[in-house]
This record gives sequence, C-alpha cells and structure tokens, in this order.
Amino acid sequence: MPGVGFKSAQRLAFHVLSMDSERAEALASAITEARKNAKFCEVCCNLTDRELCSICESHKRNTGIIMVVEDPRDMAAYEKIGEFGGRYHVLNGRLSPMNGIGPDDIRIKELLKRLDASISEVILATNPNVEGEATAMYISRLVKPLGISVTRIAHGVPVGSDLEHVDGLTLSRALSGRQEM
Amino acid sequence: MPGVGFKSAQRLAFHVLSMDSERAEALASAITEARKNAKFCEVCCNLTDRELCSICESHKRNTGIIMVVEDPRDMAAYEKIGEFGGRYHVLNGRLSPMNGIGPDDIRIKELLKRLDASISEVILATNPNVEGEATAMYISRLVKPLGISVTRIAHGVPVGSDLEHVDGLTLSRALSGRQEM
Repeated sequence: MPGVGFKSAQRLAFHVLSMDSERAEALASAITEARKNAKFCEVCCNLTDRELCSICESHKRNTGIIMVVEDPRDMAAYEKIGEFGGRYHVLNGRLSPMNGIGPDDIRIKELLKRLDASISEVILATNPNVEGEATAMYISRLVKPLGISVTRIAHGVPVGSDLEHVDGLTLSRALSGRQEM
Repeated sequence: MPGVGFKSAQRLAFHVLSMDSERAEALASAITEARKNAKFCEVCCNLTDRELCSICESHKRNTGIIMVVEDPRDMAAYEKIGEFGGRYHVLNGRLSPMNGIGPDDIRIKELLKRLDASISEVILATNPNVEGEATAMYISRLVKPLGISVTRIAHGVPVGSDLEHVDGLTLSRALSGRQEM
C-alpha cells in the first residue's frame, strides 16, 4: 500500500491482531463494502457510491463549464481551494503510449458525450508533465471543432517561490505566458 | 559565507594554510581586486567590472524590451535558458516596508530614466512572493501612464509537477490565469 513500508505494515498488522474480533470484522466488512459500492459517477466519472457524485448532483454548480482532470485526487485538490464553481470530468488516467494507454483506455468518450450546446468552456487541468500535456493536446483537438472554448491552466512560477531556484523550463513558460498587468 | 558551515570553513582555512605563500597572496589580491572593481552597470545596474555590462554592451539584444529583476542571480537564471533577447534592469533589491526598504533604496529611478520612446515593453520578473508582487505592482503604476506595455511573468503550475502536490494559491493562480489553447 502506498506510503506503508515494512515497519508501518508490521505495526498495522499487530494493531489488527490486538483488536476485539468484532472490531476487526467491522473493519474487514467496511473495506469489502467500500470496494463493492465504489463506482464511477454517471456524468463525470468521479468515484462515488451513488449514481451521481455530490458535485454533479448539486444545483449550485455552473453546468456550463467543465474542468477535465486526470484523477479524483486532482479534483479534490481543486475543490479544496473552493474557487471553481463549475463541474468536473475525471479521465481516470492519462494518455501514455509507452505504457499502452490510449484514448479508449481513459474516459474521453464520456467527456465528448457531455458536450452539448449548454457547455461554454472546457478547462484542461491535466498534470503539467509530458503525458498530461499530450492528453490536453489530444482532447483540445477533439473539442475545439465543436465551437467550445478550450483553455489550459497556466504554467508558470509557483506562488511564494524564488526565481533563482525555479527550473529553466518553468522560467521559459512563465516568460512566454506573461500577461498584461 | 552562504553555504559554508563550520566544517567547510575549517577545511577551507586549512587548505589556505597549506598553500604556497605566493598562491595565498594571489587569492587575497584577487579578492581585493574583484571587490574593488565591482560596480553597477551604468545602464541596467547589473554587477560588472566595466562601465557597461556585457549584455548592455551587446549589439545583438533587442533594446526595446526591458526585463526587470530583483537580483543579478535572477538575471543569470533567465540568461541560462537563453530565450530572452532583450535587456535587463536589476533593481538590486525589492520593496520591503517591514525591513525599511522603500522605493529610493532600490534602482527604480534608474529604470524610469531608461524609459523613452524606444521602449515598447517592460516585463516585471520580480519574485512571485509578497515583496516581489508589491514591487511589481509599484513599478507597474509608474510605468503604465507612460504608455508602455507592462507585463508580468506567468504564475501557475511548474512544468513537470503533479497537481496533487501543488499548493492552493498556485492552483488558484493557474486557474485564473488559464489561457485559450
């Protein structure tokens, strides 16, 4: 399991062994239930235990803007700052020809199905690395011909950083992406 | 000295003591000379040992664009990526009211003197932290009324990073600064 090395695993194992057998069973069945009930939201492909995730169910969200992310965790990161009022689309992966992951292996078809006249903007918030860029580029080519505005989150220097310690590629993107003040 | 702790200092000291006395004297006089000859470039206030620094002297640079940086080190970072063909202006500091550093303590006056009709753009590349932002804002207010385009390097997610591990403020700037693909 991620972040659990040998020592932590041993500690967890001994903790389980020292539990009441009732509590141990409760933990086991909670794991079984969670895994059994986990499914993808029918609209945005986020993980949920119902038909629709809480965001797609909400009436307070702007349904005209869709932010495309690779992972439910990226969605959580954006939800935490609470500044995006639209809906998401979770690809559950990224294009990665090296690992044999093509367009049919991630939720791109499901995204295209959502794009009707009510959608005004698709924000591509895939990761700012090679595979994320390729995924953004691929989706952009499919969505743009539909007449929908396609935007990409800004690349640049992170807030609070020091120019001296920022890598060259990022400096270069910060320069080419400069904006009028 | 920065980056030299007790152990390194001791090693350096013993190294100097084990030198030929000629070499030690050469080192000492090199230090004296360097410090004595170091001055600010008459145009951009970069550190140099001549009247003009090598960038201001060069005929290959675009003299119509000035990138404003806090420090000669930031200039070096941008020179390393080799994508900026204009000239620089080195403030040699940043506004910092908490530390009693005001507009007269950094090279803002010298910048304003350079702004004639031949300058088409001023790029503010101060650090993306509180003091750097304040400095950029201050300079922007002085330069804009002159009818010169004032831009700020892009804030956003650094290249190669993972959205999940990027801080909230940066995510927020990446969202608000998104650009059409």
